Amino acid sequence: MTFTPRRSRDVPTLVARARDGDPRAVARLISLVENGDPALPAVAAALAPYAGQAQVVGLTGSPGVGKSTTTNELVRALRKQGRRVGVLAVDPSSPFTGGAILGDRVRMQEHSTDPGVYIRSMSSRGHLGGLSATTPQAVRVLEGAGCDVVLVETVGVGQAEVEIASLADTTLVLLAPGMGDAIQAVKAGILEIADVFVVNKADRPGADATYRDIQGMLALGERAPGEWRPQVVRATAVRGEGVDDVVAAIAKHRDWLESSGELGRRQQERAAAEVEAIALGTLRARLGSLREGTALSALATRVADGEIDPYAAAEELLKRL
Amino acid sequence: MTFTPRRSRDVPTLVARARDGDPRAVARLISLVENGDPALPAVAAALAPYAGQAQVVGLTGSPGVGKSTTTNELVRALRKQGRRVGVLAVDPSSPFTGGAILGDRVRMQEHSTDPGVYIRSMSSRGHLGGLSATTPQAVRVLEGAGCDVVLVETVGVGQAEVEIASLADTTLVLLAPGMGDAIQAVKAGILEIADVFVVNKADRPGADATYRDIQGMLALGERAPGEWRPQVVRATAVRGEGVDDVVAAIAKHRDWLESSGELGRRQQERAAAEVEAIALGTLRARLGSLREGTALSALATRVADGEIDPYAAAEELLKRL
Repeated sequence: MTFTPRRSRDVPTLVARARDGDPRAVARLISLVENGDPALPAVAAALAPYAGQAQVVGLTGSPGVGKSTTTNELVRALRKQGRRVGVLAVDPSSPFTGGAILGDRVRMQEHSTDPGVYIRSMSSRGHLGGLSATTPQAVRVLEGAGCDVVLVETVGVGQAEVEIASLADTTLVLLAPGMGDAIQAVKAGILEIADVFVVNKADRPGADATYRDIQGMLALGERAPGEWRPQVVRATAVRGEGVDDVVAAIAKHRDWLESSGELGRRQQERAAAEVEAIALGTLRARLGSLREGTALSALATRVADGEIDPYAAAEELLKRL
Repeated sequence: MTFTPRRSRDVPTLVARARDGDPRAVARLISLVENGDPALPAVAAALAPYAGQAQVVGLTGSPGVGKSTTTNELVRALRKQGRRVGVLAVDPSSPFTGGAILGDRVRMQEHSTDPGVYIRSMSSRGHLGGLSATTPQAVRVLEGAGCDVVLVETVGVGQAEVEIASLADTTLVLLAPGMGDAIQAVKAGILEIADVFVVNKADRPGADATYRDIQGMLALGERAPGEWRPQVVRATAVRGEGVDDVVAAIAKHRDWLESSGELGRRQQERAAAEVEAIALGTLRARLGSLREGTALSALATRVADGEIDPYAAAEELLKRL
């Protein structure tokens, strides 16, 4: 049985059920987010009081670096500590969720019967604002459902890495030996976004070189007193080795975020980006409805006839918003 | 000596000089467009009376198909007819104009001393709205400068083809034998956007097969009475062969556009898209200035503290626009 909130007054019920730990209610709320449901503002209003209660951990890296295995092991380690965990596997490159993420789901099946874990794949599906618009709302749902940690896993494909950093409290960048990742990390600007580097597949040849490369590059950067120095952790996630070190590095970063006041600053910036994305989406939709109507059509005719210029017409159009 | 319009009242002078055929004034106006200069609305206002005076011909196709050679030959043929020609070479894929387009410029040097030809490379340079926002304004400059035909050449990379079709009166799609282009054309939706197909490199093996494939696919499509049936022309641009046929097909399409009333409809649609793009850019800029200010910042703090939800905050923000 699926709960369908036909009227917005059903939303508080749905949120209450999610808070009580009903996985179907959580799933339903994330679907509302994914589909850009008209009930979204009501959902957001009901979730507002629980903002900022989870540590949001972003996890990114090139394909093949072991992201889903690492995520799986992190979930296991965090569950051992008794913490509730949400996982969002985001594929910003594909209009449909498939490929790697279907694989992830299979690998994460061991957690599928654990009521303390929510796992969800999300695609950006050509949504207005894409990843930046929907993922924060999905994080809010998982926060509302009482998750202590929300892991957001995304394929490292250029822009996505920067986006994940902007929505996470703590960003993990996974590397693997022999992939030239150290140099690529510099090129892609990853050095700036990583709070914790995980050199995965540490049992493979070249792992020490990758570890030294990253440490060397971090040593070159200047840091103000009290500033966070990115941690570099070695792990072999497929055998569960080093995963506790990763968890410890995440906890250490959380402590620093709180003691330095950076946590509040990051949450504030994130909220600003979120509000801006929603506002822009609303404006786009309003312009779209003017396009359907006659206002834009009449103005366009005057532009085509050379009576007014397109800037003047745009001004006219905006006056009607 | 470069003319620099420091005050917007200089703009009419600049436009007057462009209309008198001063190539430096034309170049300066297109630079204003490319750089999103604050004087743009004044430029657009001064150019408005000349809207729709040129035939805008889009030219697209995969890399290596002979676009720049064909453009070069089209310019030569149109000049023989005594028509003034503008060329915009647009590279939407690169943040900087280089590579193929630099090559084009060299190939087009024979026209560089001809006062009846303007050639300009443009990049979208991460501009707000990209190609769709700047190219129409650059076309307006060339129209204002008295061009009878404006050729807009762009690399065929997915979305760009559709964009070029939306801003051109007449869209040419170039194909070459043995590139599997006929099938790819269907996949990419090119069959819908082409008004004229040019099978270039017609002296090569497989050219007849490509010609037949396209004709065959066009025969499958149903057309209402009076609807345009895309022309298919064979050419070997590098030897100047078939170029007059291409020019004739463009002229024939122009006649059909006028007699069918489609020209007005296309110009009107184009103006609507242009106005909408400018309006959205303006809104984005206004939101940006709110971001700089304290309005968004204060709202974001309340969202981060869980006092209000991001949708309510976005509503608040929009009220201040």
